[in-house]
Amino acid sequence: MSSSLVCVQDYEEQATKILPRNALDYYRSGATREITLQENKDAIKRWYIRPRFLRDVSKRSMQTTVLGHTVNVPFGVAPTAMQRMATPDGESANARAAGKIGTVFTLSTIATTSIEEIASEAPDTLRFFQLYIYKDRAVTASLVKRAEAAGFSALVLTVDAPHFGIRLADLRNKFTLPPHLGMANFQTGDEKSNRVNTSAGGSGINEYVKSLFDPSLTWDDVAWLKRLTHLPIVLKGILTAEDALLGLKAGATGIWVSNHGARQVDGVPPSIEALSEIIKAVDGRCEVYVDGGFSEGTDIFKALALGARMVFLGRPLLWGLACGGEEGALNILNILKGELDSTMALSGCASINDITKDMVIRKDHYSRL
Amino acid sequence: MSSSLVCVQDYEEQATKILPRNALDYYRSGATREITLQENKDAIKRWYIRPRFLRDVSKRSMQTTVLGHTVNVPFGVAPTAMQRMATPDGESANARAAGKIGTVFTLSTIATTSIEEIASEAPDTLRFFQLYIYKDRAVTASLVKRAEAAGFSALVLTVDAPHFGIRLADLRNKFTLPPHLGMANFQTGDEKSNRVNTSAGGSGINEYVKSLFDPSLTWDDVAWLKRLTHLPIVLKGILTAEDALLGLKAGATGIWVSNHGARQVDGVPPSIEALSEIIKAVDGRCEVYVDGGFSEGTDIFKALALGARMVFLGRPLLWGLACGGEEGALNILNILKGELDSTMALSGCASINDITKDMVIRKDHYSRL
Amino acid sequence: MSSSLVCVQDYEEQATKILPRNALDYYRSGATREITLQENKDAIKRWYIRPRFLRDVSKRSMQTTVLGHTVNVPFGVAPTAMQRMATPDGESANARAAGKIGTVFTLSTIATTSIEEIASEAPDTLRFFQLYIYKDRAVTASLVKRAEAAGFSALVLTVDAPHFGIRLADLRNKFTLPPHLGMANFQTGDEKSNRVNTSAGGSGINEYVKSLFDPSLTWDDVAWLKRLTHLPIVLKGILTAEDALLGLKAGATGIWVSNHGARQVDGVPPSIEALSEIIKAVDGRCEVYVDGGFSEGTDIFKALALGARMVFLGRPLLWGLACGGEEGALNILNILKGELDSTMALSGCASINDITKDMVIRKDHYSRL
Amino acid sequence: MSSSLVCVQDYEEQATKILPRNALDYYRSGATREITLQENKDAIKRWYIRPRFLRDVSKRSMQTTVLGHTVNVPFGVAPTAMQRMATPDGESANARAAGKIGTVFTLSTIATTSIEEIASEAPDTLRFFQLYIYKDRAVTASLVKRAEAAGFSALVLTVDAPHFGIRLADLRNKFTLPPHLGMANFQTGDEKSNRVNTSAGGSGINEYVKSLFDPSLTWDDVAWLKRLTHLPIVLKGILTAEDALLGLKAGATGIWVSNHGARQVDGVPPSIEALSEIIKAVDGRCEVYVDGGFSEGTDIFKALALGARMVFLGRPLLWGLACGGEEGALNILNILKGELDSTMALSGCASINDITKDMVIRKDHYSRL
Ligand SMILES: Cc1cc2nc3c(=O)[nH]c(=O)nc-3n(C[C@H](O)[C@H](O)[C@H](O)COP(=O)(O)O)c2cc1C
Ligand SMILES: Cc1cc2nc3c(=O)[nH]c(=O)nc-3n(C[C@H](O)[C@H](O)[C@H](O)COP(=O)(O)O)c2cc1C
Ligand SMILES: Cc1cc2nc3c(=O)[nH]c(=O)nc-3n(C[C@H](O)[C@H](O)[C@H](O)COP(=O)(O)O)c2cc1C
Ligand SMILES: Cc1cc2nc3c(=O)[nH]c(=O)nc-3n(C[C@H](O)[C@H](O)[C@H](O)COP(=O)(O)O)c2cc1C
Repeated sequence: MSSSLVCVQDYEEQATKILPRNALDYYRSGATREITLQENKDAIKRWYIRPRFLRDVSKRSMQTTVLGHTVNVPFGVAPTAMQRMATPDGESANARAAGKIGTVFTLSTIATTSIEEIASEAPDTLRFFQLYIYKDRAVTASLVKRAEAAGFSALVLTVDAPHFGIRLADLRNKFTLPPHLGMANFQTGDEKSNRVNTSAGGSGINEYVKSLFDPSLTWDDVAWLKRLTHLPIVLKGILTAEDALLGLKAGATGIWVSNHGARQVDGVPPSIEALSEIIKAVDGRCEVYVDGGFSEGTDIFKALALGARMVFLGRPLLWGLACGGEEGALNILNILKGELDSTMALSGCASINDITKDMVIRKDHYSRL
Repeated sequence: MSSSLVCVQDYEEQATKILPRNALDYYRSGATREITLQENKDAIKRWYIRPRFLRDVSKRSMQTTVLGHTVNVPFGVAPTAMQRMATPDGESANARAAGKIGTVFTLSTIATTSIEEIASEAPDTLRFFQLYIYKDRAVTASLVKRAEAAGFSALVLTVDAPHFGIRLADLRNKFTLPPHLGMANFQTGDEKSNRVNTSAGGSGINEYVKSLFDPSLTWDDVAWLKRLTHLPIVLKGILTAEDALLGLKAGATGIWVSNHGARQVDGVPPSIEALSEIIKAVDGRCEVYVDGGFSEGTDIFKALALGARMVFLGRPLLWGLACGGEEGALNILNILKGELDSTMALSGCASINDITKDMVIRKDHYSRL
Repeated sequence: MSSSLVCVQDYEEQATKILPRNALDYYRSGATREITLQENKDAIKRWYIRPRFLRDVSKRSMQTTVLGHTVNVPFGVAPTAMQRMATPDGESANARAAGKIGTVFTLSTIATTSIEEIASEAPDTLRFFQLYIYKDRAVTASLVKRAEAAGFSALVLTVDAPHFGIRLADLRNKFTLPPHLGMANFQTGDEKSNRVNTSAGGSGINEYVKSLFDPSLTWDDVAWLKRLTHLPIVLKGILTAEDALLGLKAGATGIWVSNHGARQVDGVPPSIEALSEIIKAVDGRCEVYVDGGFSEGTDIFKALALGARMVFLGRPLLWGLACGGEEGALNILNILKGELDSTMALSGCASINDITKDMVIRKDHYSRL
Repeated sequence: MSSSLVCVQDYEEQATKILPRNALDYYRSGATREITLQENKDAIKRWYIRPRFLRDVSKRSMQTTVLGHTVNVPFGVAPTAMQRMATPDGESANARAAGKIGTVFTLSTIATTSIEEIASEAPDTLRFFQLYIYKDRAVTASLVKRAEAAGFSALVLTVDAPHFGIRLADLRNKFTLPPHLGMANFQTGDEKSNRVNTSAGGSGINEYVKSLFDPSLTWDDVAWLKRLTHLPIVLKGILTAEDALLGLKAGATGIWVSNHGARQVDGVPPSIEALSEIIKAVDGRCEVYVDGGFSEGTDIFKALALGARMVFLGRPLLWGLACGGEEGALNILNILKGELDSTMALSGCASINDITKDMVIRKDHYSRL
């Protein structure tokens, strides 16, 4: 397998051929017309890398820290729901791959593998838990406590999903989880939180979210969460300077710039555009991460140059899992590592700190010379 | 039907398959090269939505008012001619659908259903009458009086059609109304205003318009109309700040920014571009509406954020009518309602008032950061 | 024929089907990669028309004057070489069509119909003579004298062709005139000026030009020409403000902005872009014309709004001639007339004077609002 | 052959048909997604030529000097590795063609023809030697000495290749040199420098470079090189003003702006964009050359206008060699010469000095008028 698949796009093409339609569409889709899905990628390409030469790049390191934890590469695994549709051991395979390369794995609230399973399957992997807040706050509080108990290192509170976005393919497919899979974090007790059923009217997952997630969330709930846990809180889904500042005020330890892989509202800013705005507003007062449309080493390099501390990847790992389970996921991470290493070598950067703001420039810049 | 058609574009594709060529072309066409037809849509996509999070969006309302009348959604039905080519009960079906969702229906002067029929078929629907001024001012005055008598709530004076634009497909098809249909507002008395005949030289509808509409209209005629009626007057087709200001001076109650669905002159500004210019000029002194190329919830959201009070839809309703008569039209309105609701939920807007100017930004903005 | 061909593009497509490859390629081609050929058109589309309404457009006139001569429409026929490849009576048919619609016809030096034939075939048509200056100045002087004698009203000195541009199709075809045709203005005496022969190495017409035209021309030669003739001199092919000002200084009566239909150097400014620059520089001190890529009424309207006095058309007439001889050429002119009339009616312009600068705006303008 | 291939693109298309896949891919590829490969070309097209007329262009010369040596044309041959895959006498054919037209040929370190062979096969050609610095400095020093001894006129130190970029096709093909070819500059003694072997993991050439080239190079090594040789040193691969200034300081005699034909990092500036920035920084203090995506006369003209002293061509010569050996290479050079000559004639430039900065303008310029 791995020998003929040499880049993330190869994996995507291969996954497109082998995944069942239902799962493929769920993984691949963006909201409505999917313009942002494409723009996430295009916007990254509108930045140029300004390589510097005749610097000693014989010894290179991609090591950095995230929330104080050392990672071998400045990119990690974003939370994506229901990874067992891609490969039997879904989230576990993904988490083990992240561990092998030495970076962070983020587990989704609506995973098909539970908090505890991940902890036991990937004990040495740095793990974050992505939190959706349920109307039933007891459910939420229990998730937080379980993540703490299982040795997760941070809570990633996703703020952009009071509801789920409209994804046309899921509507057409009346998307639902295959019968043998469930929301693993709710396997005991809360039956309705566990199942994603076919419904008369459309996407099963959207109905699940509509009935259980809490759309009345406000900044006060961040305060509630902070009181509930000693874990650092990262806010995921921020797209404006305004919200980033509110996040800082609310005590967030990290801001994760994201448009949820273009799955919520079509027509929001591409994440790399939002990144610049937010980096400027935050001005170093907390760590800033980004995801959305990153699929090669140069993409990651650009985000780092713009000031992101980590880049996260969603779909690329799903393609890796679909093509080869844990080995596939690890291949993806290794491809990206190799590409980023090459970009650094060929741009005069021996360490992450060398990837400074002046190493990128907007394409439009030249039309103003 | 409705279950597999999940967005306006699905309806458009389906309508394209089932409408007779003659009618399809008449409905679909824009002027000459149809560049503006495409740009109306593209220009909307050049705006980004800046979503805000952690605001309570558990209870949302799309209610607003138009000329003092409460409507459930901030979008309504634009006047389009001759809807009975799409479905047997044409305009009536459309008007009933608008009523069911709780918004305004605008009847065209050159409809295939008369003022009085609409009033009796859709008595509870908020109705506007779109007026073309005929050379024969007695004809015009009678239309106005009949609209008043039939309980219409406003006159929409279309200013952009002294003639009709050049639509190549209609020229090729020598477009004319099917024999069983007529201009329903002229069924008694004025035979020549009723018929659209095949002619030797080209589009029958263009010849109709050329022989009957008054191309000598000036701002004085707005004054004449104001004296004639107690109904509020909305000027439809304004594309420049200059004309919007003249409209205000002439006592218009509303300005309806429109390029007539790109059907008059190819190469005029996309309507959303004209909207910004006009909102700025009008500066809150009257209500401003817009139409042209809107086909999903995010599109409507953007126009509202830019300052439009209502967005109107032309072709989308024709596709709905063609695919399923009244039910099809209602599906269209419900799809848009659902999409707008989703956009509001995912952008932190619980009510129309929350959709403020800072929630949108031009794509180009980022290249200036 | 004419009934199914309703726009210039229809004629172009039809001509593409029926013209012999050799002639079609010669007519259609632009220089090398033909990027400017496309950009001439695209650049026009980057301008928007800002239509004004409620102005009396019941009586409209397109009349204007060119060099003091009244014409019925603000557009005319550009010089194109060797029109008899398109239809047996080539330039004569074209000149008669121009006369019928009431506008100017420009005869090329390298026409397949002579100065005298045109004068006798189209005596009532306003005629300009396009001049190429031959190394043999006696040849040139004789052309000028014959044009004067034959009642031509102006000399159009083409400045952009010391050589001919590289047109790949002509190189591949080893383009040459069909044997029964010759350079009609040289039928007596100067045999080598008459023939375009196949050559070993490439395009016959390019070799013709290389051996006969004078590439040593300077502004002094304009002075020489002015002394030689009482006719007004129009400089055709100007693309920069600098050259326009030199032209004014040299006593030109008109500046004809043109990139020779994108046939000389690929990568020069689209003519409508050069027009703005030149209008500004000339500042009303002489008449300014433009050609290049104009193919519908709105195109012409835009150039007039930008300040051009006349728009000229090259290829569109060739397509007309190919499809229907004189009638075809006349159809082209009538289509453009109808389209321009429609554009004026729908933009609030009753006369050419109403087409002012504020009626157009660059597309980019909106991104700066 | 030559008669039907009339431009560089024709040669490229023909070469694509006849080269073995392995070689074609190696020659053609750019790094990863190959966006820069396309942008190198597109960016050149974003500049317009502003032609001037009525200047005497009857006698034209393209002569200029490079590092004090007179050349007949302002463009030369860039170093490309392993030309014997294209035609049996590879680099020799290329060097002879360059000599025939009167310009410079640059020999790659990793050529399939040795320094000494080139000197004896093309004794009259102006020759530069492109240097890669090997970890084994004795190897490097010996190359320099051999180039000096063989009468090469300059050292072109390629600074952008501490490693080779990631080229997906080579990874897929596990690219390696055909068995009968070797790195000719290393045929004696250093066996491992001579062979490019298939490897388990990917591109053979990349492994060759990784194991032998020195990625610890710094500006100090330029100083070392200067002490080693009396030849002028040109730095090839500079893409930023910062590095250009460091190059000046280090005593470079020329700066060769290049992104290595888009083969190192995808997403760096197109070379013509970098050129402007660097010309400005260098401000005449040394000669500046450029390569990357140049494939017609107008392209070269634009770079000269922007301030480049020479333009270099890589792939075009490979296509020429593939289609017709030395004759093919010469045809390429003659096509470009003819096209540049035509561009000069049609832009009012009789000599290279006439090609001034004001003769080009960015496309975007017009949107600011
Ligand atoms: C199939 C799928 C499921 C996702 N599920 C979640 C989720 O459960 N929680 C969450 O916060 N984000 C979720 N996301 C968003 C990702 O965390 C991430 O923001 C996005 O995938 C990044 O874009 P990329 O896929 O282009 O890398 C999901 C994304 C995808 C594609
Ligand atoms: C088939 C058709 C017929 C129309 N007839 C009228 C009409 O009779 N009166 C009028 O004022 N506008 C008419 N319009 C313009 C519409 O009111 C509206 O401005 C336009 O359709 C909005 O663009 P959209 O179709 O992209 O939504 C018509 C438009 C179409 C497509
Ligand atoms: C086939 C052809 C022949 C031409 N011959 C001449 C000519 O003899 N003299 C001249 O000044 N311009 C000549 N031109 C240029 C035209 O006068 C005019 O500038 C150009 O065609 C305008 O562009 P358009 O074809 O897009 O309308 C020729 C153009 C074409 C297409
Ligand atoms: C097949 C190939 C091999 C190359 N080998 C070398 C090389 O050995 N040394 C070097 O400095 N540049 C090398 N280059 C880069 C060229 O010198 C030059 O920068 C590039 O080809 C210019 O772009 P162009 O191919 O678009 O003209 C190579 C380029 C290609 C395409």
